[in-house]
Amino acid sequence: MLLAVRAVATYELTAETFMILMIEPPLEGAGHRVKDERLATSPTPFCELRRDVYGNPQRHLIAPPGWFSYEFNATIEVAPNPPLPPDAFEHPPQELPAEAMNFALPSRYCQSDLLTRMAYDEFGRFGTGGEKVLAVADWVRRHVEYRYGTTDAMTSAFDTATERVGVCRDFAHLVIAFCRALNIPARYVSGYALGLDPPDFHGFVQVYLGGTWHNVDATFEGIRPALIPIAVGRDAADVAMTTSWVPNTLTEQSVEVREVAG
Amino acid sequence: MLLAVRAVATYELTAETFMILMIEPPLEGAGHRVKDERLATSPTPFCELRRDVYGNPQRHLIAPPGWFSYEFNATIEVAPNPPLPPDAFEHPPQELPAEAMNFALPSRYCQSDLLTRMAYDEFGRFGTGGEKVLAVADWVRRHVEYRYGTTDAMTSAFDTATERVGVCRDFAHLVIAFCRALNIPARYVSGYALGLDPPDFHGFVQVYLGGTWHNVDATFEGIRPALIPIAVGRDAADVAMTTSWVPNTLTEQSVEVREVAG
Amino acid sequence: MLLAVRAVATYELTAETFMILMIEPPLEGAGHRVKDERLATSPTPFCELRRDVYGNPQRHLIAPPGWFSYEFNATIEVAPNPPLPPDAFEHPPQELPAEAMNFALPSRYCQSDLLTRMAYDEFGRFGTGGEKVLAVADWVRRHVEYRYGTTDAMTSAFDTATERVGVCRDFAHLVIAFCRALNIPARYVSGYALGLDPPDFHGFVQVYLGGTWHNVDATFEGIRPALIPIAVGRDAADVAMTTSWVPNTLTEQSVEVREVAG
Amino acid sequence: MLLAVRAVATYELTAETFMILMIEPPLEGAGHRVKDERLATSPTPFCELRRDVYGNPQRHLIAPPGWFSYEFNATIEVAPNPPLPPDAFEHPPQELPAEAMNFALPSRYCQSDLLTRMAYDEFGRFGTGGEKVLAVADWVRRHVEYRYGTTDAMTSAFDTATERVGVCRDFAHLVIAFCRALNIPARYVSGYALGLDPPDFHGFVQVYLGGTWHNVDATFEGIRPALIPIAVGRDAADVAMTTSWVPNTLTEQSVEVREVAG
Repeated sequence: MLLAVRAVATYELTAETFMILMIEPPLEGAGHRVKDERLATSPTPFCELRRDVYGNPQRHLIAPPGWFSYEFNATIEVAPNPPLPPDAFEHPPQELPAEAMNFALPSRYCQSDLLTRMAYDEFGRFGTGGEKVLAVADWVRRHVEYRYGTTDAMTSAFDTATERVGVCRDFAHLVIAFCRALNIPARYVSGYALGLDPPDFHGFVQVYLGGTWHNVDATFEGIRPALIPIAVGRDAADVAMTTSWVPNTLTEQSVEVREVAG
Repeated sequence: MLLAVRAVATYELTAETFMILMIEPPLEGAGHRVKDERLATSPTPFCELRRDVYGNPQRHLIAPPGWFSYEFNATIEVAPNPPLPPDAFEHPPQELPAEAMNFALPSRYCQSDLLTRMAYDEFGRFGTGGEKVLAVADWVRRHVEYRYGTTDAMTSAFDTATERVGVCRDFAHLVIAFCRALNIPARYVSGYALGLDPPDFHGFVQVYLGGTWHNVDATFEGIRPALIPIAVGRDAADVAMTTSWVPNTLTEQSVEVREVAG
Repeated sequence: MLLAVRAVATYELTAETFMILMIEPPLEGAGHRVKDERLATSPTPFCELRRDVYGNPQRHLIAPPGWFSYEFNATIEVAPNPPLPPDAFEHPPQELPAEAMNFALPSRYCQSDLLTRMAYDEFGRFGTGGEKVLAVADWVRRHVEYRYGTTDAMTSAFDTATERVGVCRDFAHLVIAFCRALNIPARYVSGYALGLDPPDFHGFVQVYLGGTWHNVDATFEGIRPALIPIAVGRDAADVAMTTSWVPNTLTEQSVEVREVAG
Repeated sequence: MLLAVRAVATYELTAETFMILMIEPPLEGAGHRVKDERLATSPTPFCELRRDVYGNPQRHLIAPPGWFSYEFNATIEVAPNPPLPPDAFEHPPQELPAEAMNFALPSRYCQSDLLTRMAYDEFGRFGTGGEKVLAVADWVRRHVEYRYGTTDAMTSAFDTATERVGVCRDFAHLVIAFCRALNIPARYVSGYALGLDPPDFHGFVQVYLGGTWHNVDATFEGIRPALIPIAVGRDAADVAMTTSWVPNTLTEQSVEVREVAG
């Protein structure tokens, strides 16, 4: 299907600062192809394109003090988001490539080392990798309440395992931590999704099974019709939409994802 | 039944210090009566008897630098430890006496405020107070692994809810935190128990239902045959067997509880 | 001096609930005397007066679903808030009454056991109890930034020791935790203060030195001119202004404290 | 100087398992060159050489149930460990290569996001990058007590900032967290060190200043005479000496590092 994506935001910056934007999906991904896109920033017009260690595209720029805005518009061809097959194959650790192994280690918000017993207690009985991950996502969706304003940038999977409330970021972190505790590589994905209510940026998960990465989204019963990854990392700390080096205020933000005629 | 209780310990103290011992059960409790007892301490022979804010008996003394030992021997008549009746009545909060209400609040190791959603998710469907507490104890026994050396004096119920491993103290803290999250007053009890393997001091729980305090011990499937409370408090921080104000090393400790002829 | 105190609030309750209000100071305290007061609640007119385990006055009532309001007005004679004398005497632990010893133990938000080395490292060199507490309060005021919206009901002294930001409640918890780590009994006080900007309920500290409790307020350089305790407890968990047993929303709250002619 | 390095260990494995060993330094590093080395493993003789995402050499092997041993011997030419120059240049973030930027983000044991205010409060006044890092290392050495047995695999920089006790791993995590909070890229290094007492594997830090990585070791006043990196990562989670996928017991371990004639 063809999606029109639009993201705009305005920040108030207390001083000149270097900024990194991670709001543009790669031009071509496993399930999408960007047909056209335009990123406009003001008052700094120019944005250098760079890549982080994971290969995610980033825009680097210097913003002056005062307001800073970006507007991103894109038309993206997206394949339907495929369901995770229950028989997706769980690789023994000796078969994992180094890139996948790196996503099996604990990280800032996904302390998988602390959740090992809980993960085996809850999900150890499931047979295949696909069944385990589906059970994890189902458990998180059923046991964690989705509610804005209950968590913040310090909330981690260790908290959510017990506190049982949060937003998409928290759902994703807990899914990741459980999967890694089960030795299944899992990474955090920032992205765009069709049908979010209210519309916003989205955070979800990819797990490595059967030699490839599969989307997992515990905030939705069933399969999200379309997910477009912007960037992947160990957890949300690696893929912030914007990073700056001075105190700032987000004064306006809006995200729209809608289907358009081909 | 008649139990012989014996507890001995030796500490190496780096300097003179005030010490508080909480190793003697009250002379008369809901389920026990001390028939005779003798506490000997060396080299300080004298121990003043005092009570803490909860009414627990304490011995106060000044110990010189070097080794300090106590030896406690008692013969105690103990009624069989009664099972918690499933229909034990859960008081609405307006009926709770101030003493019970105090044990419904969160404390150092029992952060019930953080476990509210988890408690209602897991135990909210049970009807009566007794059923809820039995479900909590059963859950903790089945989901937490009893293993020495995995936890320490910093481990709290919030940790154990996720890490799922610990000793009697950790089991008790988690039971207490869940009960308080369900608005059922629960307190930590240090005490002696018949049949512990290896023998040791014990930590368990009392909950307030139907106008009285009931023993709950999640480290055992079924009913411990005999439990003798030494002291009650909000959690283990309130009822340490010994407290001193200088660095010290426990060089020897032994606890015995055995049935004797009447 | 004579102060007029007024506190009003409205809650939206999702169901009938038992409520506890702790907004009235005791009629007579170490530094104040209530000359007249009136508490009005609606739609439930009647409030039973009770006391918690610490002797704090509480109002108990049953509120119906929908809105619930209270309005408290009082005229209170207040002695000037005395400065803590630097030579205030630190009792050796054997001299502490049981009530004070209880406030030397760690609690939900004041994990003094975890701050022992930090407390001795920062404050161990100060000689008397008074000097130590003054150094603690000064350190907290200089190292912690006062900022609304940065902390929540889960934030504890252990967090604030490192995160260095919070509101009066967080300042008080950190002062308490340091004092207890230094073996100085310290308790949390909810109350009214003259000159808060913006006006609000206040949280501060009392420490036990020289046989009595002294006010300590780390949110202010110098001495707050007037502090009126409502309730004392181990930490904020013990002295909530209102407690209810159903989900609720605070839709309006206002506190005024002003000097009036005698 | 020429160093002889020897590391031996024996594990008891409960089942066949894949194992990863990270005990061999790269053949050539910024300050060392391996002249000869021999790694022997039993009963599995063969070890495949692989690299993780950071380029660290790893040995991959399958070990049978029962005991597993390795013995590593090497002769390594090592340049004296250079002091960190106080004027080492702190790059503005826009100049950092992606590899360095990755080490400026928070990780499992180095929650730099939580230590920002503390870092600026303590170290913000220092001028250059080199001065800041030297101040951080000095602070950690002076404020944290080195003591075995006080921390475990769950202890993080956030804990150590307040608890103020630990071993080399904890010292390194806290240095890293402070540096990242100051926007200075810092990574964890596992390695060998000359003169450790007792001899053991070592954990230290590298910071990115002036276009290169500099060793920092807060466990020692002055400059460790020789440090040989084995592997670098975000924190200790990335560079475990051995990783296996079954429960195991380390039954014997010994590390020796001594100077030999050239």
